[in-house]
Amino acid sequence: MTDHKKTPRPPRNEPDIRVVMMPRDTNAEGSIFGGVILSYIDQAAYVEAKRQAPLRYVTVSMKEVVFREPVHVGDVLSLYAQATRIGRTSMTISVQVMAERFAPPPSTARVTEAEVVMVAIGDDCQPREIEIESSGGSAS
Amino acid sequence: MTDHKKTPRPPRNEPDIRVVMMPRDTNAEGSIFGGVILSYIDQAAYVEAKRQAPLRYVTVSMKEVVFREPVHVGDVLSLYAQATRIGRTSMTISVQVMAERFAPPPSTARVTEAEVVMVAIGDDCQPREIEIESSGGSAS
Amino acid sequence: MTDHKKTPRPPRNEPDIRVVMMPRDTNAEGSIFGGVILSYIDQAAYVEAKRQAPLRYVTVSMKEVVFREPVHVGDVLSLYAQATRIGRTSMTISVQVMAERFAPPPSTARVTEAEVVMVAIGDDCQPREIEIESSGGSAS
Amino acid sequence: MTDHKKTPRPPRNEPDIRVVMMPRDTNAEGSIFGGVILSYIDQAAYVEAKRQAPLRYVTVSMKEVVFREPVHVGDVLSLYAQATRIGRTSMTISVQVMAERFAPPPSTARVTEAEVVMVAIGDDCQPREIEIESSGGSAS
Amino acid sequence: MTDHKKTPRPPRNEPDIRVVMMPRDTNAEGSIFGGVILSYIDQAAYVEAKRQAPLRYVTVSMKEVVFREPVHVGDVLSLYAQATRIGRTSMTISVQVMAERFAPPPSTARVTEAEVVMVAIGDDCQPREIEIESSGGSAS
Amino acid sequence: MTDHKKTPRPPRNEPDIRVVMMPRDTNAEGSIFGGVILSYIDQAAYVEAKRQAPLRYVTVSMKEVVFREPVHVGDVLSLYAQATRIGRTSMTISVQVMAERFAPPPSTARVTEAEVVMVAIGDDCQPREIEIESSGGSAS
Repeated sequence: MTDHKKTPRPPRNEPDIRVVMMPRDTNAEGSIFGGVILSYIDQAAYVEAKRQAPLRYVTVSMKEVVFREPVHVGDVLSLYAQATRIGRTSMTISVQVMAERFAPPPSTARVTEAEVVMVAIGDDCQPREIEIESSGGSAS
Repeated sequence: MTDHKKTPRPPRNEPDIRVVMMPRDTNAEGSIFGGVILSYIDQAAYVEAKRQAPLRYVTVSMKEVVFREPVHVGDVLSLYAQATRIGRTSMTISVQVMAERFAPPPSTARVTEAEVVMVAIGDDCQPREIEIESSGGSAS
Repeated sequence: MTDHKKTPRPPRNEPDIRVVMMPRDTNAEGSIFGGVILSYIDQAAYVEAKRQAPLRYVTVSMKEVVFREPVHVGDVLSLYAQATRIGRTSMTISVQVMAERFAPPPSTARVTEAEVVMVAIGDDCQPREIEIESSGGSAS
Repeated sequence: MTDHKKTPRPPRNEPDIRVVMMPRDTNAEGSIFGGVILSYIDQAAYVEAKRQAPLRYVTVSMKEVVFREPVHVGDVLSLYAQATRIGRTSMTISVQVMAERFAPPPSTARVTEAEVVMVAIGDDCQPREIEIESSGGSAS
Repeated sequence: MTDHKKTPRPPRNEPDIRVVMMPRDTNAEGSIFGGVILSYIDQAAYVEAKRQAPLRYVTVSMKEVVFREPVHVGDVLSLYAQATRIGRTSMTISVQVMAERFAPPPSTARVTEAEVVMVAIGDDCQPREIEIESSGGSAS
Repeated sequence: MTDHKKTPRPPRNEPDIRVVMMPRDTNAEGSIFGGVILSYIDQAAYVEAKRQAPLRYVTVSMKEVVFREPVHVGDVLSLYAQATRIGRTSMTISVQVMAERFAPPPSTARVTEAEVVMVAIGDDCQPREIEIESSGGSAS
């Protein structure tokens, strides 16, 4: 009879992951390997989940990801993650991926966005309840 | 008025990527980082696209990925990719991800599956037509 | 007779690099390898230099770095870089390094700060003048 | 008085390791670093040893390796390993290394082969007996 | 009232770290990433600290580092570290960084030097006393 | 009718590669991955070949390698390479691998040795003659 939904803390308007793309991140075609970007999406969701509630998490799903723009060596990749729904044991996190390019003139491209679901786990690796502090709305 | 669909070469019943999970692939929780698995899905799709037609490709999308099972250090990850649809410039590839575990008794777990779309590109980085040899059906 | 100093764009109050510390970043003692943190300081300075003026840069010096706090696997490392002086061909960038820790209760530690000098170089790899757009103060 | 030789499980006619060669695997000359290939030979032997008997193993030797063909970025490297002799505590594994190249026309090159000896170890890191299930011959 | 200074073992006139610069060590500009060199400085200091006294150490500071010469793929980087002062719990280590270049004619460039301070720590991660064997001067 | 053998420059009594073993170098069993050591053997041979004559080289073979001792995180691995035979286009290089261990009391273990053959190649990637300066014997 209880509603397990909790109110996520509001966005902090800062990237959750921001990195420079390096030559070691390229694929056999010389552009940035899609897997590298997917890896950072997973990390950004993890950072946001931790910010919402400091538990252990495992990734259970990533919704469809469409790459709209290629990413190149030297681009700065910024990932903005925000929890959009917190259930009893799981959290849904929306991630926006932007690429800053400095080749004159500087520009910013929206690379992709993703929706990641993470589940909180306990020491026994089983799902556990996510408790959000009541004063969550006022946090950092 | 032409139908651009082509018949993909049949599966080769072998993994397109097979790797051992190493400590350097773990996340902060000690299990294999989801991003590592997503990276290998992208690579497996790339191998299958190349097998179908030896062109340059970029990843344009990955359908929803649901992780059913965790992956651990020492597991052998096998990714089976198969083109399911070849359009004029794009190819849809289905990827199955299995984990072999040797901790007695040995077992095999179905970790996840994914659907990746790749687009063939030319030297100008623009989409180009995918030509499949007519004798495709007899390939290795 | 000219003063080569230019006014840097103001801080954007966002990290220039933000990453999660992973097991592969540890040293033989199990804590995060100092070299990893120094690497990210160098990257943060590069991102800030690019934001100030989109040129090629090489690192010429890093002032003394004092590590006040250890960094652990799972910490989120945020590096805030700000140009403090822009000369004719070089730029001085101040970098603050913070670690967010989620182990309950969450906390933030000031790990270190650094001052990096970068020099702009041309296609001939020789120092070249840094030109800042006059409307620099209003940028992102 | 006993003969310690056991009959290895038959080959599975699939690669034990299959990977795409990436730019990060190149040496200072721009081709794939020999050490990368040797690393994968070691991994392939490990996978085969685990398939034969799910124990812990250490590599004790690798017979002469002759590189017949260079390997390039974008090549798919396939390593086929097969136990050829199982002694009381050690296992000899033969590894074939093939490179698939997609540059039209596609081709397959035999890069090298190797013979690796692994020893099974117990929790005390000392050699321990390798027990093969009697029904080994019928395994996957 | 006691003088905690101890006499460091003399230099061994060999590099403490020597590595070949690889393509994966390059930055977005194609030259060797400054962070890679700083990482090896930290490792060289660690090797020297261990040689002086076999304890656990953490890096507490690195004095100003000025890069005099760029480093390129294929260069052999040699780092010579020598303890210059051993206090009660800390050790000051001077590190010289040289690059051997083979592009005919071969040459050696002095890339930079650094001064690293390391602190010995005990099992409780707290600083602990550094004991040097009295016969230190005759060591390896 | 000419004898292509040339006299190699004498050993420099210094390691050609020296590195600290890090957690990212471990295998699924927690000890240092054999492939890591084989990679450094290949690099040490490359450094020695360059020292003998500053050409481009590819590895053509590695004689049997027997691992006598395991290598652990924190060990300092030193590889001593010496050309033992220089033919018209190829060079045979002997590599000794030692591990320094600091766990009190400090010790040094002989891990393995290897014999690597490298071939000099020209801009066309074909074997080319190795010319040694006549004053080779007096070099560093």
